[in-house]
Amino acid sequence: METNSSGGAGGGLGSESSTMILHNAVVVTMDSDCRVFQNGAVFIDIDKIKAIGQSRDILQQFSHVAHHILDLHGQILLPGLVNTHVHTSQQLGRGIADDVDLMTWLHHRIWPYESNMTEEDSYISTLLCGVELIHSGVTCFAEAGGQHVTGMARSVELLGLRACLTESIMDSGDGLPPSWGIRTTDECLQSQKKLYEKHNNTADGRIRVWLGIRQVMNSTDRLLLETRDAARELKTGIHMHVAEIPYENQVVMETRKVDHGTVTFLDKIDFLQENLLAAHTVWVNDTEIGFLSRSGVKVSHCPASAMRMLGFARIREMLNAGITVSLGTDGAPSNNRMSIVDEMYLASLINKGREVYAKGTTDPTALPAETLLKMVTINGAKSVLWDNEIGSLEIGKKADMVVINPFSWSMVPIHDCISSLVYCMRTENIVSVMCNGRWIMRDKKILNVDEEEVLSLAKEASSKLLRRAGIKLPSRMNVIP
Amino acid sequence: METNSSGGAGGGLGSESSTMILHNAVVVTMDSDCRVFQNGAVFIDIDKIKAIGQSRDILQQFSHVAHHILDLHGQILLPGLVNTHVHTSQQLGRGIADDVDLMTWLHHRIWPYESNMTEEDSYISTLLCGVELIHSGVTCFAEAGGQHVTGMARSVELLGLRACLTESIMDSGDGLPPSWGIRTTDECLQSQKKLYEKHNNTADGRIRVWLGIRQVMNSTDRLLLETRDAARELKTGIHMHVAEIPYENQVVMETRKVDHGTVTFLDKIDFLQENLLAAHTVWVNDTEIGFLSRSGVKVSHCPASAMRMLGFARIREMLNAGITVSLGTDGAPSNNRMSIVDEMYLASLINKGREVYAKGTTDPTALPAETLLKMVTINGAKSVLWDNEIGSLEIGKKADMVVINPFSWSMVPIHDCISSLVYCMRTENIVSVMCNGRWIMRDKKILNVDEEEVLSLAKEASSKLLRRAGIKLPSRMNVIP
Repeated sequence: METNSSGGAGGGLGSESSTMILHNAVVVTMDSDCRVFQNGAVFIDIDKIKAIGQSRDILQQFSHVAHHILDLHGQILLPGLVNTHVHTSQQLGRGIADDVDLMTWLHHRIWPYESNMTEEDSYISTLLCGVELIHSGVTCFAEAGGQHVTGMARSVELLGLRACLTESIMDSGDGLPPSWGIRTTDECLQSQKKLYEKHNNTADGRIRVWLGIRQVMNSTDRLLLETRDAARELKTGIHMHVAEIPYENQVVMETRKVDHGTVTFLDKIDFLQENLLAAHTVWVNDTEIGFLSRSGVKVSHCPASAMRMLGFARIREMLNAGITVSLGTDGAPSNNRMSIVDEMYLASLINKGREVYAKGTTDPTALPAETLLKMVTINGAKSVLWDNEIGSLEIGKKADMVVINPFSWSMVPIHDCISSLVYCMRTENIVSVMCNGRWIMRDKKILNVDEEEVLSLAKEASSKLLRRAGIKLPSRMNVIP
Repeated sequence: METNSSGGAGGGLGSESSTMILHNAVVVTMDSDCRVFQNGAVFIDIDKIKAIGQSRDILQQFSHVAHHILDLHGQILLPGLVNTHVHTSQQLGRGIADDVDLMTWLHHRIWPYESNMTEEDSYISTLLCGVELIHSGVTCFAEAGGQHVTGMARSVELLGLRACLTESIMDSGDGLPPSWGIRTTDECLQSQKKLYEKHNNTADGRIRVWLGIRQVMNSTDRLLLETRDAARELKTGIHMHVAEIPYENQVVMETRKVDHGTVTFLDKIDFLQENLLAAHTVWVNDTEIGFLSRSGVKVSHCPASAMRMLGFARIREMLNAGITVSLGTDGAPSNNRMSIVDEMYLASLINKGREVYAKGTTDPTALPAETLLKMVTINGAKSVLWDNEIGSLEIGKKADMVVINPFSWSMVPIHDCISSLVYCMRTENIVSVMCNGRWIMRDKKILNVDEEEVLSLAKEASSKLLRRAGIKLPSRMNVIP
C-alpha cells in the first residue's frame, strides 16, 4: 500500500488491478438523494466505484485492500462533467467567425473551413479541444457531428476521455460548398453504420458511436426516418441541431406543411424518441415543449452560442415540463471558450435575466445552483444515455470524477459550497480529472498527451487549413507589422 | 543594465530611478489610432511611458539608458484594465445571497452584512477583492461605495493598485438596519470631505477620493445638489447607482413628480454632469439616453449583476448615442466572479442576444471585440476621469499594463488577436500586472501581499462577520457532516 498525502491529487492507478481510496474530500455525489459527504471518501476498484461514504468508514473498511490511499485535504470531489454538444472538429477554427452575421459565418467561414478539413486535421482539432475539455473538468462529451469520426476516435482514445461520436450528416440542402457534394441517403446511413461497427464500444468502452442529423433543412424525410430506425436497431442515440433560428421554422412550415416548426414536424413523423439529443432547441412553443416532454427527448442548452447566434432558449419552461436539459459549449467558432464551467455560470445568468421579458424584472431564483449542477452531471449523463454508468458518484458507477481546489482567490470565502461551484468556480480551480478509473489530468498536467506538442501541431494545422480554405480575416485595428 | 529573457515577465523596477524596456511583445496600445505593434516595445521611466514603438527602434534608442531589458517572447501587452463599479467591502460576502429574491438579498443578507462590518473587515475584504482584481488584469477600479474608506485605502496602498474610493452615502430611506441609523445631510457631506482631505492623492497619487450617492431613494434633494457642488469644488467625481430596477423609477415618478424615472429627475435638478459615473443605468428610455449623452455622464455596465438582479441595459443604444460606457463587476454577492475579463465575454454575449427582442434574431455583430476592449481600457479611464494618465499605452501616460500569455490551451490557435483577447482570454492567461511603473503581479504571483495570508484572514473575518450579522444560509443538498 502506498499512502500519498501531498497536496493536489497525487497517487496513481498504475496497473489494471489497482484499487484506490480518495478520502478527506467534500464529496458531492449528485445521487438521487443529493448527498454531500462533508468529509467523504470513495473506494475505487479498477474503473468502478465500489464504496462511498464518510472518510472514517471507508478508511476503516478498505484501507487493508487499497493499493493507493490519497488524502484530498478537503478539496471537492464531483462527478466528471458532461458536455452534451461540442464540435471537436471546429477547435482549429476558433476565432475565424467572431462578430460576423450568420450568413458570413456559415458561407464564408464555417463551410469553407469544414469542407477543407482532413482526417488528420480532425484528429489534431479533437486533441486540442479535448485538452480544453479536460482542463474544464469534462470526462464525457457528445460530439455534435464532424467530418472525420475516425480522426476524433483516435484522439479520444489517446486522451482517455469518454465520448459519443457522431458524423455530420446531410443528404440535401442548397448552397453547400461544391467540394463537399451531397451524399445520397443510403451513403449517409451506410457510412454511419460502418463507423458504428468500427468504433462503437472501443477504447475500453469509452467510445460510443451515435447517429447524426445536421439539421432538418439538410435532411430528407427518408433520412430522418431511416436514421430513427437504425438508431433503434443499433440501440444508440441521435444527435441533431433542432429549432436553431426562426428561419428554420419558417422553411419547415413552408416545405413540410406543418403549423409551427421543426419540433412539430419531427413529432408528426414520429421522430421524437427518448434517444434523441436535440441541441439548442431555441424556437419552440408551448405545444412543442409538450411534445419534447412527452416523448422523452433530451435538450442540450448552449447558452453562449445561443446568445451570440440563436436566441433565448426556454429552459425554465422545459425544466418545469420535466425535460432533461443538459449543457453544451457548442463549437469554438460559435463560442470561443470550450468551458462547461463557464457555461454553468452563463446559463444561470442568462436564464435569470430572460425573465425580464415575461415578468418585467429578472428572477434571481430561476435556475438555482443545484439545478445547474445537475445539468452538467446527471442530466448530462441521461442526455447521452449513459446514466447507468456515469453522472453521479454511486456504488457500481464508473470512476469518472473531478478534483476541485476551492482554496484560491477565485472561490474564497465559501459560505455555500454548492453555489460556489456554479458561480465562483473557474477552470483554474479544476486540478485533477479521472475517467474510467484512470487519471487523465493531475495537478493541472494532462497525462496522456504532451500538451505543448498538441498546441504546436494545432497552430500549424490551423494556419494551413485556413490558407487552403481561403479564409482571410479583416484586421480590427491598425496593425504595424 | 540587466537583461532578462526568461519566460513570463521577469525583470524588476527595484529603485525609484529605474528605467526599463519591455520588448518583443504584441503591444495593443488602445490609442486613438488603434495602433497594434506586432513586435513592439515600451520604454518606461520610473512610473511613466517615455517611448513606444517597434522593438528594434526602441531597443536601438534606449538600450544604453535602460536599467532593465525584458523580452516578453511574443506575449501580449495591454493597458491595465479598469473596473468601474466594484464593492470591495462585499468580497467577504461572496455567496451569501445566491438565488434569492431582491428583498431577501437586501434585507436579510446585504444590509445585515454591511451594517455589521468593521473597518478591519473592510480592509481585509478589499485585500481579498484586490487580489482577485489583479489576477484579472485590473490596475484601476472605482469603488461603488462602502462603509470604511480608510480601511479600503490601506489595502489599495499596500496592493499597489490605483483606485477611486467612495463612501456609501444615504441621508434618507425606510427600512435600513437600526444599528446604521440615518445620517444627516450635513454629516454625509462632512464625512466625505474629511475622507477627501485624508486620502485624496495619497499612495503616490494612486488613490483618489470620490463622492458617493448610494441611490436616489436614499437621498434628499439637498444631498444630491450639495454633492454635485462639492464635487465641482473638489474637482472630483460622483459615483451613484442609477435606474437599477423598475420600482426605483416608479418611486421617483411618484415622489419627485417627473414623468419617467431617476435619469429624468436628475436631469431636472441639473445633477447630470461630466463627472457623474452612473452605475447600471438599466431602465432608461430614449429621452433619458439623450440626457445622459448631452451631459457627458459616464455609464458603468455590469452585465453579470444586471442579468441576475436588474435587467438588460441598453448598451448598444448608449454607445450609439456617444455615451462613454465602461464595464464593472459589481460586488461579490451580486456576481461571484470579480473578473473584468469574464465581464467582457458576458457583455458581448448578452448584448448580442438582447437584440432578439428588438429584431427577432440575435445580432452577432453588436458590440464587436474592439468595442469591448475599449470599454475596459480607455472608456474605463474616461469613466474615472483619469484618461489623461491611464487607459492606453501612450507616451507620457502612467505605466499601467498587463502581460498576457496567449500560448495556452484556452487561446490557441489565434487567428484574430483582438477578438481572442475578448472571447478566449481568461484570467488564467494574465501573467503579470504593472501599476504606476511597478510590478504588482509577476508570473501570477501577487507581489505586495502574501496571498495565502490574505485568504486565511478573509476566511476567518467572513465567518465572524456572518455570525455577528446573524446570516444563516439554508442547505441546498443533503449534507452529511
